[in-house]
Amino acid sequence: MISVVEARRRILAALRPGAPEIVGLAQAHGRVLAKPVQARLTVPPADISAMDGYALRVADATPGSRLKLVGEAPAGHPFSGQIGAGEVVRIFTGSVIPAGADTVLIQENATAEADAVVVNEAVVAGRHIRRAGQDFSAGDEVLHAGRRLSVRDVAVAGAAGYPWLCVYRKPRVAILCTGDEIALPGEPVPAGGIANSNASMLMAFASAHGGEPLLLPIARDTEDAVAEAALAARGADMLVTTGGASVGAHDLVQSGLARHGFALDFWKIAMRPGKPLIFGQVNGLPVLGLPGNPVSAYVCASLFLAGAIAVLGGLDPQGPVFETVTLGASMKPNDTREDYVRATLTRAAIGWVATPLPVQDSGMLTALSRAGALIRRPPNATAAAPGDEVEILRLGLS
Amino acid sequence: MISVVEARRRILAALRPGAPEIVGLAQAHGRVLAKPVQARLTVPPADISAMDGYALRVADATPGSRLKLVGEAPAGHPFSGQIGAGEVVRIFTGSVIPAGADTVLIQENATAEADAVVVNEAVVAGRHIRRAGQDFSAGDEVLHAGRRLSVRDVAVAGAAGYPWLCVYRKPRVAILCTGDEIALPGEPVPAGGIANSNASMLMAFASAHGGEPLLLPIARDTEDAVAEAALAARGADMLVTTGGASVGAHDLVQSGLARHGFALDFWKIAMRPGKPLIFGQVNGLPVLGLPGNPVSAYVCASLFLAGAIAVLGGLDPQGPVFETVTLGASMKPNDTREDYVRATLTRAAIGWVATPLPVQDSGMLTALSRAGALIRRPPNATAAAPGDEVEILRLGLS
Repeated sequence: MISVVEARRRILAALRPGAPEIVGLAQAHGRVLAKPVQARLTVPPADISAMDGYALRVADATPGSRLKLVGEAPAGHPFSGQIGAGEVVRIFTGSVIPAGADTVLIQENATAEADAVVVNEAVVAGRHIRRAGQDFSAGDEVLHAGRRLSVRDVAVAGAAGYPWLCVYRKPRVAILCTGDEIALPGEPVPAGGIANSNASMLMAFASAHGGEPLLLPIARDTEDAVAEAALAARGADMLVTTGGASVGAHDLVQSGLARHGFALDFWKIAMRPGKPLIFGQVNGLPVLGLPGNPVSAYVCASLFLAGAIAVLGGLDPQGPVFETVTLGASMKPNDTREDYVRATLTRAAIGWVATPLPVQDSGMLTALSRAGALIRRPPNATAAAPGDEVEILRLGLS
Repeated sequence: MISVVEARRRILAALRPGAPEIVGLAQAHGRVLAKPVQARLTVPPADISAMDGYALRVADATPGSRLKLVGEAPAGHPFSGQIGAGEVVRIFTGSVIPAGADTVLIQENATAEADAVVVNEAVVAGRHIRRAGQDFSAGDEVLHAGRRLSVRDVAVAGAAGYPWLCVYRKPRVAILCTGDEIALPGEPVPAGGIANSNASMLMAFASAHGGEPLLLPIARDTEDAVAEAALAARGADMLVTTGGASVGAHDLVQSGLARHGFALDFWKIAMRPGKPLIFGQVNGLPVLGLPGNPVSAYVCASLFLAGAIAVLGGLDPQGPVFETVTLGASMKPNDTREDYVRATLTRAAIGWVATPLPVQDSGMLTALSRAGALIRRPPNATAAAPGDEVEILRLGLS
């Protein structure tokens, strides 16, 4: 059995980002830039006004002086002439500062007359002017390759003049659920069998983490079925299986994939839930074999699949982000396996408090659904008491 | 001018959730349940084994005893007979416990022979058995209406036998950018004009927060253009405009919408950036008028639009979630406007530290893109020093 950290290291080291594609700017949110964004425009394109008011010469802007209104320059309609001594041009937020002007008198400090303006307050040179290129200049690299694009990054790319962006393709994650006892929800359930929850869960998980799910037909518990299903995964960037990862006679993922030359990397991890986790490759296709139990499958997906999709999608390898919070109940010493304990997460005066759910049975999917966090218990952790610090992985919508 | 809290209260109070629709289970992630999920199945459907091993009677499970192997019951293939005294049935994780058996001997504690099994360790009655209905029973309400569905909730609904779910429709958010100076990215930019960043930013924002964006053609700075654009928003659940919300002669959103009977609720908020924010209705269509400046528009969207989309999409009204972190640099006293200060967010030994970016000019879109948080400075806040606590709104991908 290898450690969680070692397992993650081996998985991420085996993966490479996919090819790039072009998407429209508004669709680029959440995607990973494959090429940097070098600004095609300068922003602002010229000195512009940050306020509504009047452009003028600071030398003329003495309180009480009456200046001649020689024109108006709304945003998008620059003044074509030149401001001379004793002259002003009406401007607005975003207006280009006319030639000859060196400051802005805001309208709150002026009295407008028919063809003149009276200055009511002194003005400082350069005030309320945003200089050309203050935000960025054409040629500046405003967004670096490898960045996952936020809503705000999309805005930057738009301002830089990009209608399209070059991003990494979403990794296509083929999902193969195995077992004689499972049926997709709504389909007839075999005797003693169950409605499958892993398929939809992993489709949603892959989407939420930036992948493109591809659900393969369920494979029954024969080597033939698993071998055939593996062929159906061609074209995918990763194959994720559930079930059949243990040592039982009916655990056939490894033997089924072996027909296509499966190269095993490892298949046991010192963690709970989730010991039987397979990782390897079939003809260059990375294969992650998750446990069949949906709680275990979810925990393993959070620890390994999320990072795998990220790397396949062009991000730098990194583990899940743990937070340190306060423990809300006592916990027994841990054995040699790293433990991921389902816990509620509540906000108290001292900050976030994680309290283990009373039932940790990995058959309790509803408890997982109600949990707000997984508490990470390192191997051989000593007993913990309320008030101790613990590391958690926060469980959000994903 | 009204406060940020009052503005949010008024906006959210004016909105109602939309109609429901049916989506496939795997597409329901992130959606808000319009009808509760009452389990159609019991999980587990019968007493099942949590381990690979042998089903037997606890009375027979004395160490050293040799028991007769009378059958095998893989998951999905229940044993049809009854276990008698001195008999065992081979079972696996997920197998139904055969009639007559009351415990499980795990395979690690047994020695398998051709047609018999030797018990190596004592067994406790009921051990390694998951009872029928341990997770939930048919009829139980496993997910409540009004809940935004996580990946784990999708798994619960699947296990409960639901191939489809009834969720609220994604609110359709019509986006209207106004101004003579703007061009969509990649289109010819007028003299002194700029590439528009608000359109793509707000499309991405609406999507990220659960809405369905609908980008209207840009409206030029005439009442006619705004009035016409407003008609194009029919069928939307909300109209969001940018620009034209101030008092300048070229700010035409209010006057353009007035042609269709615009009922103004408010249009000035005591906040920075973002003072000129309009809220009202046109023939029952809620209208949120954001500032034209993209930094201001983003901050206002975070404070008001995110919550509006949530309510239109079926969630209970609630404000943004602020966190308390440590301030990394000194801040001056605040005036009467609530201030949202762009800040970096770094992790230190003491926890998260928010440090205001040196330039707060709302023309700096790249600074917004680099920021990790907005520090909320209440009206009239006194000066703050490094080490003080401040409230922040964390800026993630959305």
